[in-house]
Amino acid sequence: MVERKKWSENFSEWFNDVIEEAGILDKRYPVKGMNVWLPYGLKIMRNIERFIHEEMERTGHQEVLFPALIPETEFKKEAEHIAGFEGEVFWITHAGHDELDVKLILRPTSETAIYPMFSKDRGGWIRSHADLPFKIYQIVNVYRYETKHTRPLIRVREISRFFEAHTAHVDFEDAERQIKEDLEIFDNLMKKLAIAYIISKRPEWDKFPGAYYSLGAEVVMPDGRTLQIGTMHHYKDNFARAYNIIYEKEDGTHAYVHQTTFGMSERLLAAVIAIHGDDRGMVLPPTIAPIQVVIVPIPKKGEEEKVYSYAREIEEELRTAGIRVHLDLRDKRPGWKFYDWELKGVPVRIEVGPRDAENRTVVIARRDKLEKITISREELVDKVRGLFDDIMNYLAERSRKWLESHIKRVDTLEEAKKAFEDRRGVVEIPWCGSEECGLKMEEELEAKMLGTPYPNPEAPEGKKCPVCGREAKFIARFARTY
Amino acid sequence: MVERKKWSENFSEWFNDVIEEAGILDKRYPVKGMNVWLPYGLKIMRNIERFIHEEMERTGHQEVLFPALIPETEFKKEAEHIAGFEGEVFWITHAGHDELDVKLILRPTSETAIYPMFSKDRGGWIRSHADLPFKIYQIVNVYRYETKHTRPLIRVREISRFFEAHTAHVDFEDAERQIKEDLEIFDNLMKKLAIAYIISKRPEWDKFPGAYYSLGAEVVMPDGRTLQIGTMHHYKDNFARAYNIIYEKEDGTHAYVHQTTFGMSERLLAAVIAIHGDDRGMVLPPTIAPIQVVIVPIPKKGEEEKVYSYAREIEEELRTAGIRVHLDLRDKRPGWKFYDWELKGVPVRIEVGPRDAENRTVVIARRDKLEKITISREELVDKVRGLFDDIMNYLAERSRKWLESHIKRVDTLEEAKKAFEDRRGVVEIPWCGSEECGLKMEEELEAKMLGTPYPNPEAPEGKKCPVCGREAKFIARFARTY
Repeated sequence: MVERKKWSENFSEWFNDVIEEAGILDKRYPVKGMNVWLPYGLKIMRNIERFIHEEMERTGHQEVLFPALIPETEFKKEAEHIAGFEGEVFWITHAGHDELDVKLILRPTSETAIYPMFSKDRGGWIRSHADLPFKIYQIVNVYRYETKHTRPLIRVREISRFFEAHTAHVDFEDAERQIKEDLEIFDNLMKKLAIAYIISKRPEWDKFPGAYYSLGAEVVMPDGRTLQIGTMHHYKDNFARAYNIIYEKEDGTHAYVHQTTFGMSERLLAAVIAIHGDDRGMVLPPTIAPIQVVIVPIPKKGEEEKVYSYAREIEEELRTAGIRVHLDLRDKRPGWKFYDWELKGVPVRIEVGPRDAENRTVVIARRDKLEKITISREELVDKVRGLFDDIMNYLAERSRKWLESHIKRVDTLEEAKKAFEDRRGVVEIPWCGSEECGLKMEEELEAKMLGTPYPNPEAPEGKKCPVCGREAKFIARFARTY
Repeated sequence: MVERKKWSENFSEWFNDVIEEAGILDKRYPVKGMNVWLPYGLKIMRNIERFIHEEMERTGHQEVLFPALIPETEFKKEAEHIAGFEGEVFWITHAGHDELDVKLILRPTSETAIYPMFSKDRGGWIRSHADLPFKIYQIVNVYRYETKHTRPLIRVREISRFFEAHTAHVDFEDAERQIKEDLEIFDNLMKKLAIAYIISKRPEWDKFPGAYYSLGAEVVMPDGRTLQIGTMHHYKDNFARAYNIIYEKEDGTHAYVHQTTFGMSERLLAAVIAIHGDDRGMVLPPTIAPIQVVIVPIPKKGEEEKVYSYAREIEEELRTAGIRVHLDLRDKRPGWKFYDWELKGVPVRIEVGPRDAENRTVVIARRDKLEKITISREELVDKVRGLFDDIMNYLAERSRKWLESHIKRVDTLEEAKKAFEDRRGVVEIPWCGSEECGLKMEEELEAKMLGTPYPNPEAPEGKKCPVCGREAKFIARFARTY
């Protein structure tokens, strides 16, 4: 085997290697920034999406599916939106042997596909206050012609698993309530993934094109750069005005709806792989692991059948208990199998040899802490379930500590620069609130302003903006980002 | 309410109306041949796909996900394939502000996306006999620039739910075994949908582009036209030669793989809607109905709470029994609700009034036969489960009879013409086997040759080809097709 790069030393190469070796994606597809999902990776992603579907169901969002192609004419209706995206859309200009009358774009996001259907103009979905709030979502492929360096799961030209929820509301305040619900949904999901994150309100110059304001959720990756893994946008009535989405109020008058969106993608999987990983490969939370327990028989010459029959008995019991279990009967050495399943991040490994079969014991190894214990056969299911909880708690706690130790609050640009040289992560700096000073800091620090802490912006007392020296009104977060 | 066209009189308009009124698709999306999936329609389709996923799991197919874009260079490697598809692909020529060096197509099907990854040339997935048989599948959106009249679910420019299985084998015979497995999978699925079908081996001139032979599965629609709802293709080593997909045999020599594909789509849902439908709307098999039982309370002034609490009790019991149940508490008249749920095809309706609450009885209406029975509260779950079986059997039997009564065997073109004027459906004619006579019959009958019955071609004894008068070697099936 080729020596894999270490998570702890060269995260970027580790990530690229693990994604391919663990069977997440195949990166050899002959279009830049587009990858093939392999069965194991797809299974993990589907398990993540299962929780998304459950949360959507719980909160009354309905699933829909829109076409991936949008006519140029619809795409160009909201001025800021088109300005923000036109540099990165793929254009369909011909079909068969014809040149198209109206060019089509491949959706980079679906506002301009969906909102014409909301509008009364097309006899659409939203007519009266009784239709509101209107909440839909879809998980689809979207396309962005990234000119930056592409990176699997993180910066791609085809986002295969793009989640987008779109909602419409009677007024600004009801849309605000939706943003709060989105944050709650996101938090529930992050608990399932055992991932700690921060939410920031983006500065004006970095809002989603067309948004009134934008929130972003970030994690700190092993190399100290941040990764945006979720966004929530309040559109106010910006799109409603462009697409004429009006409703009839109870008093018979009409008003524009206020809208929000909530977005996530396979970056969730990137965060799981990166944050929980170690030098041996992935460490999957049991909640989303396609295989939660793998059984590796360690047979001894002449005692094979005893071991295999004991292994099958254990497999059957775990399966009956609803645990996703796999018995590895490949014709390979146990050490090779350990290495393989550790790489693939299976949370719990069970080893069974002849002595275990005789003594009715089971050796259990947990992937996160790389510890082994021996238990008696009778306590199997309870112990395994308990171990799942322990692993979730351990991963969540480790992730929380990692995040907290990578947020540093400073007063000056010098301290900020030092922080970026040192541990990196997120650096918080007092800020007067002006775009000029914000951009100046971005430039000086070679970092991006993530925005201000949300929902509590924490106005700092007695602090000065390090650029202009005026009184600071905000704490601004900066990071080197993916 | 606008009077809906009748299933029995004007199927084509009935189909268009029901699809929209029952909440399957919204056809107002502003790109020709592309529709929006509505929540109810998507739920039915997902239930159909659940059975597909189960069958794939049972037969050892692994799920993957390929990019939707294919470079022109890869697309053009298999000569027949490109000839067959180039008239109907969408071309991406620009991205952002750039003209692309290599144009991209939107996949019309994924052979040319997938097979480069199989090939050793790219360090691909198939290297040795130990990798074979290799079986993968995906359910994805594909694109075809249809120039014919488009029709929702049936002939569209975006097929949103395209199922395609791709397999590779050591030799021709092993690929033959795969085709047999595909037929078994298809038959299992059709049992879940209660749909009767026929399989035909396509004539040479109507094979899938690049195939050695093609099989098609057809149903007869209410207007007597046939709809192809599944295909299985044996590629022999045609694509393997174009994409250099070779494997090392046990003896160390190398050989090309033999390949097959198996395809289905949302036409499955079209068939369900069309074949089981009636003048009131859809009739869904309980296997795939998002709501299997709807409870409509029929309250009486002053006795509301008694009725609602009895309805909730019934809802709870059915839900606990694992039945997909919905209690309709909308502020509408019962008659309006009956109409709505009949349109949506909910297999079983339960009506509860004050007298039912008092007598502990339940009125059950079945959607397929439009019959009502009164049962006692205690037998509820058993009766409902029994009714599901009865409905499945009734739908399957009705579908079988419909199909059989629409297959007519004749000896002459005159009889064939008469059959098409009369009931239509499938007409079987003795055929010498020559392309010339086959095409001549297609022209005369203004029909398509579906092919010969598969797997038993039924060589007719003592029959003559009605075109050339030579001895008939085959029975050829003709139909007016969708």
